[in-house]
This record gives sequence, C-alpha cells and structure tokens, in this order.
Amino acid sequence: MTDSHTSIQLTNGGQLRNFIALRGLPKPVLEQILDTAASFVDVGGREIKNVPLLRGKTVVNLFFEPSTRTRSTFELAAKRLSADVLNIDIARSATSKGESLMDMLRNLEAMASDMFVVRHADSGAPHYIARHATPNVAIINAGDGRHAHPTQAMLDMYTIRHYKGGFKGLTVAIVGDILHSRVARSQIYALRTLGAAEIRVVGPRTLIPNDIEAMGVKVFNRLQDGLRDADVVIALRLQKERMDAALLPSESEFYNHYGLNNERLTVAHPEAIVMHPGPINRGVEIASEVADGPHSVILHQVTFGIAVRMAVMSMCMGGRETERAARRQQEQEGQDVR
Amino acid sequence: MTDSHTSIQLTNGGQLRNFIALRGLPKPVLEQILDTAASFVDVGGREIKNVPLLRGKTVVNLFFEPSTRTRSTFELAAKRLSADVLNIDIARSATSKGESLMDMLRNLEAMASDMFVVRHADSGAPHYIARHATPNVAIINAGDGRHAHPTQAMLDMYTIRHYKGGFKGLTVAIVGDILHSRVARSQIYALRTLGAAEIRVVGPRTLIPNDIEAMGVKVFNRLQDGLRDADVVIALRLQKERMDAALLPSESEFYNHYGLNNERLTVAHPEAIVMHPGPINRGVEIASEVADGPHSVILHQVTFGIAVRMAVMSMCMGGRETERAARRQQEQEGQDVR
Amino acid sequence: MTDSHTSIQLTNGGQLRNFIALRGLPKPVLEQILDTAASFVDVGGREIKNVPLLRGKTVVNLFFEPSTRTRSTFELAAKRLSADVLNIDIARSATSKGESLMDMLRNLEAMASDMFVVRHADSGAPHYIARHATPNVAIINAGDGRHAHPTQAMLDMYTIRHYKGGFKGLTVAIVGDILHSRVARSQIYALRTLGAAEIRVVGPRTLIPNDIEAMGVKVFNRLQDGLRDADVVIALRLQKERMDAALLPSESEFYNHYGLNNERLTVAHPEAIVMHPGPINRGVEIASEVADGPHSVILHQVTFGIAVRMAVMSMCMGGRETERAARRQQEQEGQDVR
Repeated sequence: MTDSHTSIQLTNGGQLRNFIALRGLPKPVLEQILDTAASFVDVGGREIKNVPLLRGKTVVNLFFEPSTRTRSTFELAAKRLSADVLNIDIARSATSKGESLMDMLRNLEAMASDMFVVRHADSGAPHYIARHATPNVAIINAGDGRHAHPTQAMLDMYTIRHYKGGFKGLTVAIVGDILHSRVARSQIYALRTLGAAEIRVVGPRTLIPNDIEAMGVKVFNRLQDGLRDADVVIALRLQKERMDAALLPSESEFYNHYGLNNERLTVAHPEAIVMHPGPINRGVEIASEVADGPHSVILHQVTFGIAVRMAVMSMCMGGRETERAARRQQEQEGQDVR
Repeated sequence: MTDSHTSIQLTNGGQLRNFIALRGLPKPVLEQILDTAASFVDVGGREIKNVPLLRGKTVVNLFFEPSTRTRSTFELAAKRLSADVLNIDIARSATSKGESLMDMLRNLEAMASDMFVVRHADSGAPHYIARHATPNVAIINAGDGRHAHPTQAMLDMYTIRHYKGGFKGLTVAIVGDILHSRVARSQIYALRTLGAAEIRVVGPRTLIPNDIEAMGVKVFNRLQDGLRDADVVIALRLQKERMDAALLPSESEFYNHYGLNNERLTVAHPEAIVMHPGPINRGVEIASEVADGPHSVILHQVTFGIAVRMAVMSMCMGGRETERAARRQQEQEGQDVR
Repeated sequence: MTDSHTSIQLTNGGQLRNFIALRGLPKPVLEQILDTAASFVDVGGREIKNVPLLRGKTVVNLFFEPSTRTRSTFELAAKRLSADVLNIDIARSATSKGESLMDMLRNLEAMASDMFVVRHADSGAPHYIARHATPNVAIINAGDGRHAHPTQAMLDMYTIRHYKGGFKGLTVAIVGDILHSRVARSQIYALRTLGAAEIRVVGPRTLIPNDIEAMGVKVFNRLQDGLRDADVVIALRLQKERMDAALLPSESEFYNHYGLNNERLTVAHPEAIVMHPGPINRGVEIASEVADGPHSVILHQVTFGIAVRMAVMSMCMGGRETERAARRQQEQEGQDVR
C-alpha cells in the first residue's frame, strides 16, 4: 500500500504528480510543500499572493460529497493560480443519464482537464481514479472516507511550523474522535515524517482505533494527561453525522470529559497553540473562550490553507509537465534511432 | 443611526469603504459614484468597459435571499473589474454542518476575501456584518429587508442624470408600494442628497408609511395628481410575495388605480422618463405599452447598473487600501520611535 | 425556412453571426469552422490552446434543459477564449418572480451580454430568441428539441476529417434512433454540404422518419447491410427518456438487432472509425469491446468538441463585430452627408 501510494504520487525523479495521502511521501516533499506555500504568503501572514502558475490549465472540482467550505478553498486556490475552474455537481449530473462514473471521468479528462480535486465518501476513491480512470489528470484528494485528508494535514503542519519554528522537540496532542477522523490519520503521518518528538491521541476508548499505537503515537484516555506540557493541541470536529449513536451518549457528556476550555488548557505549555480543522462545534469539542482566545490559531489555519492548496496544485502540475517533457524526448529519441 | 452609518461607510479621509445605505452619505461621494460609473460606460451608453481595478481581489456573493438577477449583475460587475468571484449558496451550506453564521463569515474572511456582496431578508444584516463580523472585508449591500437597496438607487440616479442632465429643478414621482420597498427608501435619500426639486410618493394610503413626509417627500393618493408635470416616473415592483393579502384586494384593482398606461402618462412632462427596478409585472404596475414605449428607460437602467456596481466596488476597495496603507505607516512610525 | 436560417446566421458579407442549425449554411462556412478549430488543437491533437479572442466578452449559458456535460464543454470553450462566463439556472430563476421569459432575456442582454448558449426542449427556441428576443446577442444552439445540435455535428465532422483526411468518397452509417435525434438531423445536413459520398441511416422502421430519404440518405433496416464497407460508423444514443415505450420492446432487443459489437463491425471497412455523441449506454447501442476498442474515437470527439465550440463562438463574435463596425460607419457617413 505504501509503495503503491508512493509510486502513484511521485514521478521517477521524485516530484509530486498526484496528492492522495501523506503515507509514503518523503520528508523533502513535505518540506517543499511548506516552503512553496510560504512563498505565496505575504510577510505578515495575512494575505495570499496571486500568481500565474496554472494559467491556461483547467481544474475540475469533483465533489461526490458536498462541502461548500472545502470546495471554496480549492476554488480560490485554483483561481489565485490563474487556472480555469469547473465545478461539477455530481449528485445532479453523474448517473442522471445512466452514464457510468468511469465514462464521466474519462469524458472530463477528454475535455483537456489538467487536474481533478476529488472529495468522496469512500476511502480509496481518489487513488482508484488516479490509477485506473484518468491517469493523465493530476488528482488531489480533498478528503476520502475515513482514509485521508492530506491538504488539511499539510495546512496544519504549515501552521505549526509558522508558530513553533519547526517540529523538533514538539509534543502534539490530537483530541477527540480519532476513530472516524481522516484528518487525524493524515496528521499522524505528517507529524512523524516531519519529526515531531511526541504525538498523542486523546479520547474515549470507543473513539480510538485498537491498533493506533502501531502508528507511533501514545494513547491517552484522560484529557488532562494528554494535554500536559503539549506545545500543540488539535481538537477534532465531532463528526456527529458519522458516529453511531451508541458510541457516544451525548454532546454534553463529550464536552464534560474532552471539551477544551481555559481551565483544562492550563496544564499545556504556556505558549501552546490550539488548532481545529473546522467547522467548530462550540461547546462540544471546544469552548468559545478557547476558540476565540489567545491560544487559538484556527482562523490562521484557514488562511494558510489557501497557500498550502496552491502549493500542492502547482507542484503536481510541475511534476506532470516534467513527465510529459521526458516522454516527448523519449519519443523524439525513439524516432531519431529509427 | 445616521452617524453609525456614516462612520462605517467612510474612511477618516471621507473615502467609501463599505456601501450599506445612502442615508448619511454626503453629496460628493454620491457624485463620485456617478462619475466613476460614467468612466466605465462607452460614449453611446450601450457598452461597459472591462478594467483591471480588482485584479487579484476576491469577491464573495453571499445571497441569503435568492436573486439570480441581482447576483448576476454583481457577478458580471466583479468579473469586469477582473476580480475572482465566489458564489456561496447559503441555503445549502450555512448551517448544514451546525456552523454558526458568524463562524462561516469569519472563515470566508480568513480565506483572504476582500469583499462580500450581501443580500439578506433582515434589515440591518449587512450593517451588522460590517461592524461585528468581518470588519476587514468591504461590505456591499445588495438589498436588506425593507431597509435599503443602495446600488439600485444609485443606478436609478445614474439613469436620471444621463437622461435629464442633473437633478436641479426635477420633479420625481415614485409610484406603488412604498411601504414594503427598500428601493423607494434608498431612492428618496439619494434624490434629496443630490438636490431633486420635488420628490413625490404615489400610492394607496395602506401602502404608504404614516411618517413618510418627515423624509421630505410629498404624498399623493391619486395617480393623476402625482404624475402631473413629473420629469421622472418610477414604478415600483408590486412585491406580491411580501404583502399581506388584506392590504390589497387584487392585482387588477391595483392596476385600475395605479397602473401606468399611456393615457395616464399624458399629464406628466412630455419628455418624462419611466423607470422600474425590475422584474416588471406587466399589466399590474405597468402596461406593456409603457414598458416597451418611448418614455421607458428600463433596460438602460440594467446596463447602467453594471457600471454603477463596478464604481461602488472599486471605490470601496480603494478606500480599504488607503486605510491599510495608513495603518502600515502608523505601525512603521511606531517602530521607528521605539 | 432555409432562407430564414441562412439570413439570421450569416452577415451580409457571409460571416457567421449566430449558430443555430446547419441547414442552409454554405460549405465554405463549415470548412472555416473546421479550419479555425484546427488552429486551437495542438499538433498531437490531444491538447487545446488558450487564446484571448473573447477577452472582455460575456457569455451566458442559458440551459432550459439540464445537461452538465454539454454546459461544461461550452463553459470550458468560453473560458479558453478568455471570456467571462455566467451560468444561469433557468429552472430556479426564470419565472420564480413571475417574470416573462422575454423580459428575462432582454434583461440579460441589457447587462451587456455578448453571447447566449441556448439549450431548450422545444425545437426552434434558439431561432426564436435570435429573431425576436435579443437580436444584438450572438445565439449558439446547444441543442433544441428534435431540431438540431449543430456544434455536436460539427465536432463529428472535425473528427471524421481528422481521421479520414476529408469527406470525398466516404460512406457514413448513422445507426439507431434517427426519429428522435437532433444530432442525426444536423449530421446529415453537414455531411451532405461537405460532400460525403453516401450517407446511410440504419435502424428499425419505427425509429426512422418516413420522409428521411428526401434528405438524401439511404435507409437500411438491417444493421449488417448498413455497416457494409462503411468508413465511418456513428452510433446514436438511445434516448430512453424521450421514447414512447411502445416503439421499442426493450433495451436488450435493441442491442440484439442494432447494438455494435466487434463481430458485426467486421463487415465495415477495416479502418472504419466508430463514433458516438455520448453519454454512451454500454450494452445497449454499443458494446464495451467497441467503445473501448481500436476503432473507437469517442473520447477524441470530446476533445475536438472544445476546439469546435471555440471556433463557432469566436467566429460569431467576429461576425457581430464586423456588423457593428459597418453600422457605425453607416451612421458616420449619414452624419457627414447631413
């Protein structure tokens, strides 16, 4: 699986060509994403520059699972790279005329599309599309099932590096519903690759996968133990719509045991930052006093998210063009020989 | 209220920074809007020029109340200013994941948005957003409840100035449902500020607010009295969906008393122009012979509306940039002192 | 009818100004469309170039009948010509406020729109709009009822010319539901004008119009007879949603008699190409072994479709500008005389 992900995501020369999962991507690629994103952020970190890197390219947003927020960030990122953007409302179009998904994808590819941004409720869908449906289109995973949400994890890494200077020696606590979270999975891979000292997952036993320690994390069931001396605290969104009711008695009970508030944060490092992938459930996983307080960098994550998505998109397009140039040269040389 | 509107709409130097209501805006600002719009209209008045004034800026259409027509005019205006445009379908996205409106707005702001075009069924929503939610984003009111529709009023002013040369000595009759009309309210403020000689509101007693004379207008309940010698006749749209049935017996009864037809127009000035904010209800507030006749300038209003919206958008962005430059210089000077 | 179509589609100088139907358009215009499209296709025929020919122009997609695929191709074509594109969701907007279709169209024209791409379930709607509603806007027919789908037919012609070098001596077989197909009708006009040697329509008696031979085609009711020695085989989409159930017993019966598979194709020319307007119904009008096989050029049709739509759009805009320039000069000369 790791090998499969690596080979499909990187060119022979090691350049990014698809962005599907963080598992298997080497540290230099992740650092290149962060450095490229930094070049799009202004000095103060509040504005994002427009650049013509994708001028003349066509980016198609293929959201099989609706998400206005995530689609908007990708749409803005593509437009700031000067790409043409096409939003396809899958629910209304896909099979309405009896066309198979595969045929629809191949048709979109044939329209001279350069990149698909794919969101899908099934784990593995972007990988499948990249391998079997439209190999000539760059695929960006915008969240697939419980599997991965790699651009979210990379914007989190950008935010951590921005505020903490790097990953060395950092203790990072991820709090909440680990079991159903594609965000947590991607964060853990990224933090390990980038060299965080200690990665903790914090939550009730029912919401933490049994084998998670094999990923190199420490498990904490008590919030106060998990937060102690943490440099970075990441609250996960309680995916109410995905959770089996029986796993969690009520929102207020979750808040009573795992909700972040100012008092509980006192055990963390005094300069800890608090992050959240959004949208936040106030009073469930996080109190307003924390979300709007001095430790919170939640809205900065959103700003950095545009730059990180621009970085991933422009790097994949660059990798594809290197591949095409190499293929053209091979064909040329083949003809010269004949 | 006036002061609040003035301070939130103008920079310290008197430049436009939000465009929420006409009440409280000084005459030179309104004239600057008309002059700026004129620079976008070609000599013949039929085509609108494209300009790069908002290149690299992001405009978000936030329509809490659906209006394809008004959204389209703002979308076109923004694109002709070379802005990137994001349309957010609020109904489908806003609270679908339990996110508060305030959090959604702050997230959109954090995506490095520069301007929100806001349409809302509640009076005061754009003002609230500008003051409390996203003060760093320029807010353009695209119609809020019964309160205001300032870009509509300014395109009406542009049309009047285009055909009548100015406002001095003009008699303007506004006919129809004044009570529920945000358009009428904005028109009255604009006409007073720009110096129209006489502003008349014409309609049945039940559709005219009791205290309207305090706004400096004359009230007429008989159409023929209100139209006599008028230079400009503005028919309002009968907002059927907003009106309590009991206030108005039927559409045909309204037409019998207040519908504009050629015969009734004979008492107006021979060169009177007839305007309507659209969409028109043929045979209710206006007969087809008038809507399509020689006095009608209704479709020209639409063309001018693009130019006026371009003017308001580019002026607000200019005001914001002046503010930011001033703030940066202050910070610089503060650092020099230290 | 022919004359009416010719005069509304061509300027006095014979340039394209609307694109509504192929009937009545002369051969040089069709060839100019193909040549212009060729200039947008790269050497390998796999990529489409971006050009600034419609910069500053506004294209409105008016789809009265939903079609994500066709709308997407026009949207991409317009964006690759650097136009601003406005998508109007007619179902949600049109008459929701009681506005007449005619008024809505005139309003969109007044917003300084340059081109409407019209899809409509009623035959003749684009022609009606071009003649009676908005004569100053270039109208492109994106499919109207059973009448015509001229851009589809022209991309088919492009594909044939690309693979066969021209039309001279070609035998073309159109297979399937001719009766309900606007595509077939447009293809027949185009093939005759461009000089194909033999045009065949192949299908069950119930799905072939009685008077079709008057269009200059040969009718075949047995598939094998129709395919014999054909250079080009075009399978039509079985328009299940349009067909009266009684006309056709079942999909499998249709496939048994008219479905294209490898075995049946053996009677055609060994280098025959197989085309389909899409979306394909696998196992109904075409077997997967053919759709994905060596004779199939179905996905290339899609790629060429972008270039052909770019050609039609840029040519209509050119014709409109020539007309406007001529009109301005006339006005000028009229003034000089006075």
